[in-house]
Amino acid sequence: MNEAAPVPRSGERFAVEYHLTGIETDARAKAEALCLDQTVELPDELVPAGMIREQILGRIENFRRLRADRYEAMISFPTRLLTGDCAQLLNITFGIASLKPGIRVARLHLPDPLLQSWPGPRFGQEGLRALVNVYHRPLVCGVLKPLGLPVSDLADLASQFALGGLDLVKDDQGLSDHRFCPFEGRVARCAEAVAKANQETGRSCLYVPHVSGPWKAMHRRCLLAKKAGAGGVLICPGLTGFDALHDIAQDEAIALPVFSHPGLLGSFMVHADSGIAPNVLFGQLPRLFGADVSIYPSFGWSDAMSHEDCHKIAVEVGIPWGHLKPIFPTAAGRMNAERVSEMWAFYGHEVVIILGSGITKPGTDVVAACKVVMDLVTHRVQ
Amino acid sequence: MNEAAPVPRSGERFAVEYHLTGIETDARAKAEALCLDQTVELPDELVPAGMIREQILGRIENFRRLRADRYEAMISFPTRLLTGDCAQLLNITFGIASLKPGIRVARLHLPDPLLQSWPGPRFGQEGLRALVNVYHRPLVCGVLKPLGLPVSDLADLASQFALGGLDLVKDDQGLSDHRFCPFEGRVARCAEAVAKANQETGRSCLYVPHVSGPWKAMHRRCLLAKKAGAGGVLICPGLTGFDALHDIAQDEAIALPVFSHPGLLGSFMVHADSGIAPNVLFGQLPRLFGADVSIYPSFGWSDAMSHEDCHKIAVEVGIPWGHLKPIFPTAAGRMNAERVSEMWAFYGHEVVIILGSGITKPGTDVVAACKVVMDLVTHRVQ
Repeated sequence: MNEAAPVPRSGERFAVEYHLTGIETDARAKAEALCLDQTVELPDELVPAGMIREQILGRIENFRRLRADRYEAMISFPTRLLTGDCAQLLNITFGIASLKPGIRVARLHLPDPLLQSWPGPRFGQEGLRALVNVYHRPLVCGVLKPLGLPVSDLADLASQFALGGLDLVKDDQGLSDHRFCPFEGRVARCAEAVAKANQETGRSCLYVPHVSGPWKAMHRRCLLAKKAGAGGVLICPGLTGFDALHDIAQDEAIALPVFSHPGLLGSFMVHADSGIAPNVLFGQLPRLFGADVSIYPSFGWSDAMSHEDCHKIAVEVGIPWGHLKPIFPTAAGRMNAERVSEMWAFYGHEVVIILGSGITKPGTDVVAACKVVMDLVTHRVQ
Repeated sequence: MNEAAPVPRSGERFAVEYHLTGIETDARAKAEALCLDQTVELPDELVPAGMIREQILGRIENFRRLRADRYEAMISFPTRLLTGDCAQLLNITFGIASLKPGIRVARLHLPDPLLQSWPGPRFGQEGLRALVNVYHRPLVCGVLKPLGLPVSDLADLASQFALGGLDLVKDDQGLSDHRFCPFEGRVARCAEAVAKANQETGRSCLYVPHVSGPWKAMHRRCLLAKKAGAGGVLICPGLTGFDALHDIAQDEAIALPVFSHPGLLGSFMVHADSGIAPNVLFGQLPRLFGADVSIYPSFGWSDAMSHEDCHKIAVEVGIPWGHLKPIFPTAAGRMNAERVSEMWAFYGHEVVIILGSGITKPGTDVVAACKVVMDLVTHRVQ
């Protein structure tokens, strides 16, 4: 029982790898409790015999020691407990377990027949590269901020980013539908500014507005964004729920690349012994639920994100996973020209780099500063 | 600066009380970073002078030592950064901050003019008491489980709970829209079973189905539930997003009591030095967003929930808070007849007690067992 765990293939069951904190007896007790808590939520002695005991309960497929106070349990659940939406997958994976300390979701193992029921990313790395017409280097994204600027200033900034040669310009996640900067006006002006700059540069920079709020407002805003010529939408599934992201990714009338932002998701990962590991939270979940780009704070910004976490995210979003297209890992947090080579060296070229706010320092020629970064990205400095 | 912090009253700013882990210099640095991260997300030297620096940034209104390695910072933000939805309130309160360790949201201070824009709970304690026609004792709720039972068995169980005199019967949060137990059939049968039992007992037990999934499915299911005679809806905002709960609570066509369930929310509170404190997560947020009943695991189930946490939740949901109706705190987790008096003694009579699965132990006469509990609740054993 000390080997890597078997992965379900038939589609009748899927598995979740949990890391459990404690001495072996405690960790085993946690694994046994997970089998019950995440399905029937009954004590073992109350589980009815027959179908429920034999087929509904979670099963410990493997249990092994990782280190003195940490164990890995691979637990399988019947696929029939899922219902095709994000909510129920998260519910079975971690709904009740989230309420107890010392349990971390370390990886999902979803067999191909189950993956078939998830459409996944519409564009993926390849589709997004085709849209921006850039194939062999990292993509670079500027951010429209700060919250508080009027629409005209944000549109000017969008124009400068695009004239400077960036591939993507996204809203800050603080921009919503404020009176001083309304969604509709902002998106129309910024999309127009980027389109005009593209005419000048001959490039295909995409503008990606932040869409948030209750579902009806989000849906309406996505359609407005589409109509205005936005090139994608930025969604914080921690604020809106993952099903909102999934719905929008699948909506044929919207059909825009979806950028997933980590706002409010941090509590799932700031403690290494509980929650949902970054490779799941920022890797597997956004890809499964249809994001084309998964943004997270790369190492160097939060103590909670290590080099290893970021490496694992980059692996998760790019490895073969059923029919699901690979998506972009997206390094954010204090990125500047000096870090471009570091990011490329670390991630390879399949990464989106989100430039930090240093690029818009007062007095800076933003267009020129962007060109410096794009030169670095195009002619990689070793 | 070592006194309780002032609370904004004018409505132009609201305040968030954060607990910050670390020595004083670190905690101060965290407080200063919060003022920037939760608004403009720029380093201080890049914040434009004028309106943005003067009005948009968070402000430290108070900073005090709680103990050697823990400080409290009261930080105010401009109300104009909110947009009337749950997503943006959570975004400004904790969106980016969630990604860093050692920051905990300890309390929200929302001035009355801001509260006016939140309708809050439709029924509250008083409204729910009127619906079940019970006024001077805790309410008692049974749970339809386990996941895996067919509809007919769940309906039988619902009938027994209602015949036994329980006030409320809710779905387990694992029940969704499974092929072996479809939503529409389950809700119709269970609502009918409870209605029939009510005719027999002359009481007004309410059946509360779990509603989950993407927003359109949730909305459709709520309307189905209403039509079928359900007496409330159970929603897990951790799975669906808080705006889904808020939308449903406000929907005039649904107009049912809303029960908030803690599924997937645990990662916000399992570590005492990060996330969102239980009094906010299970107290202030559900009440503000329109839940009538806030379910959480009471002390004795998870190591993460202390007596003090539960006491604070009970205070938050019941104290005067603008025009917002008081709602029910709801003790769940291993509740049985023996714990009824303990819960009453601890919470007073303004509490919903969710009975644990022991009440349905095989071989138990469920109706008789419920009657024992209801006798205890009605004639409190001191």
